[in-house]
Amino acid sequence: MNVNGKHYRTIWVSPDSESTIQIIDQRKLPFEFAIESLRTVDDAARAIKDMHVRGAGLIGAAAGYGMYLSALNAPKNIDQFNAQLQKDSQKLKATRPTAVNLAYAVDRQLSEIAKAGSVDEKIGVALKTANAIADEDAECCRRIGEHGLPIIERISESNGCKPVNILTHCNAGWLAFVDYGSATAPIYAAHDKGIPVHVWVDETRPRSQGARLTAWELGSHGVPHTIIADNVGGHLMQHGLVDIAIVGTDRTTRTGDVANKIGTYLKALAAKANNVPFYVALPSSTFDWKIRDGVKEIPIEHRGADEVVYVDGWDGNKIVRVQVTSPGSPAANYGFDVTPHDLVDGLITERGICEANEESILELFPEHR
Amino acid sequence: MNVNGKHYRTIWVSPDSESTIQIIDQRKLPFEFAIESLRTVDDAARAIKDMHVRGAGLIGAAAGYGMYLSALNAPKNIDQFNAQLQKDSQKLKATRPTAVNLAYAVDRQLSEIAKAGSVDEKIGVALKTANAIADEDAECCRRIGEHGLPIIERISESNGCKPVNILTHCNAGWLAFVDYGSATAPIYAAHDKGIPVHVWVDETRPRSQGARLTAWELGSHGVPHTIIADNVGGHLMQHGLVDIAIVGTDRTTRTGDVANKIGTYLKALAAKANNVPFYVALPSSTFDWKIRDGVKEIPIEHRGADEVVYVDGWDGNKIVRVQVTSPGSPAANYGFDVTPHDLVDGLITERGICEANEESILELFPEHR
Repeated sequence: MNVNGKHYRTIWVSPDSESTIQIIDQRKLPFEFAIESLRTVDDAARAIKDMHVRGAGLIGAAAGYGMYLSALNAPKNIDQFNAQLQKDSQKLKATRPTAVNLAYAVDRQLSEIAKAGSVDEKIGVALKTANAIADEDAECCRRIGEHGLPIIERISESNGCKPVNILTHCNAGWLAFVDYGSATAPIYAAHDKGIPVHVWVDETRPRSQGARLTAWELGSHGVPHTIIADNVGGHLMQHGLVDIAIVGTDRTTRTGDVANKIGTYLKALAAKANNVPFYVALPSSTFDWKIRDGVKEIPIEHRGADEVVYVDGWDGNKIVRVQVTSPGSPAANYGFDVTPHDLVDGLITERGICEANEESILELFPEHR
Repeated sequence: MNVNGKHYRTIWVSPDSESTIQIIDQRKLPFEFAIESLRTVDDAARAIKDMHVRGAGLIGAAAGYGMYLSALNAPKNIDQFNAQLQKDSQKLKATRPTAVNLAYAVDRQLSEIAKAGSVDEKIGVALKTANAIADEDAECCRRIGEHGLPIIERISESNGCKPVNILTHCNAGWLAFVDYGSATAPIYAAHDKGIPVHVWVDETRPRSQGARLTAWELGSHGVPHTIIADNVGGHLMQHGLVDIAIVGTDRTTRTGDVANKIGTYLKALAAKANNVPFYVALPSSTFDWKIRDGVKEIPIEHRGADEVVYVDGWDGNKIVRVQVTSPGSPAANYGFDVTPHDLVDGLITERGICEANEESILELFPEHR
């Protein structure tokens, strides 16, 4: 999407050098717009682990390019090359345990690279595959927008073309993918079509991806929005101030349970209690077809307590870190929660919309029957 | 309760001068423990409005002492004295529109002061009444602890004396009252009796009263606790990690609807969905006997967006303010939400426990039939 009037993706091959991958260092947003260059698989692994890049789709694309950087810098001896790629694939997979797109991208690279003959051919295949993963992610998201648009259109028609109030949690925007985003794709599609929308942006503590990233990208694109504390959504729904909630997902069971940023479940409960449609937008790569019970089977990442204890903010000149909790008090940091499928009104995928149950999901994805 | 081994209330008459009221400046907690002196009604009004003191009970006590400072400094001519007190009573009432204890304390002072004869007698009555309001608040909270204790005791007995996990939101602790607190009173009572407890402390954005104040006071008293982002409680309840939720209230309808810090409603929804007992602790002064439908009738305070946009934190040497949202993005700041009575399992009052419905409430408070 656009930044200062120029179109960007979140990850790309440097126009100056095919051996350099470039990303937006999202840790510095919204206060600084910084481009970072990745030249080794370690650069890529660190960028994923330390969240220079984050979000299901972008983590997958970054892992794809990470494997390309691995191939590019591996020894030219074929056995050593293969051994290095195996080692690097494990390193990449270990960076973020919950993200299913990561393992998908790494395994796809290993499989494609294995098919090629010489080391040079393998490197070429690795670049081609990384680009394909990125392009497919962007195209997936564009289609999610296409399929989700009519839902917003219908609400707009039914409310006399007043702005459609949409609540979203965390950042399932283009910054979390290669372009368009998942939850934001229908919003951008509606806005670009001239349908008036207004987005309630959950701050999304502890990392505040909503207040920092979603607000930044919506603002950069000119979409009206308001940042709210995570505590507010229930009150808004209770008072008819939310027409629809659209969130993303990091992992989705074949039965429609949704693991997304911590706090999603609370908004889904409030939506159900107040008859607010609750939609989850996802590229189908986030489906984990092997699991059925999200609450029981999806491991929840425990992140460091420092993300709760400290806040990075802008003091007017630079980003500084301040403590926001009582010194000496312990803190816990659960990264995700699981929203059971009965709280989800629909899944917006690149193939269309389905209900959050196995039968409806498999109608769209019959190859997983 | 204790701070550094010494017992404090949150507001008291200075031992050095009966014309000075002292408070803990809660804006500086948990990083600095600062005592502030109030010498005029304007000092008291500013302390309430700018949240040097906050919380239902403490606002009432501060308003009581505010009226005493008004009387102390008013002209000695009886007509001018009365006119000044009327004017100051309006000033105090305007500081926090949602707090019902504030109007109660101010009106009680006006009524008691009116009964006294000379201006000097009126000043004496104002001090006596302010002290009575503070003492009654502390005694109320002590009794809430007494009545709530058996609930925690029963959970402890039924789970084989493992620590009882209690979730609380915002600060309904002794810092919000004169002593003991409301939601915390049963917790302190249980802890002091040797029952093992562990408190999940909601951060409570945007002002973070949980992470700053509740964590500080629990820590000062030696109660085991863990700070969590406001997004986490639903996940914990879903996984059996919360045995009971206890929160406070700023205003309660005669039907048992509860207006409390924004986000309380979301936790009540999660508690209901996961069969976690959800209790509200309150001195009966927070009842608003005139209203029946909390969602429709309780006005919700809209506070400044700056509380969402900026965070005050400790940089290691001092409290600094940093921006935590995307520059240029608007923010909204709803102060409270209303939890409908059907989500509340019980009200813990100074007279005992009742169900959150009119019949059960009026059994405890028959004078309001």
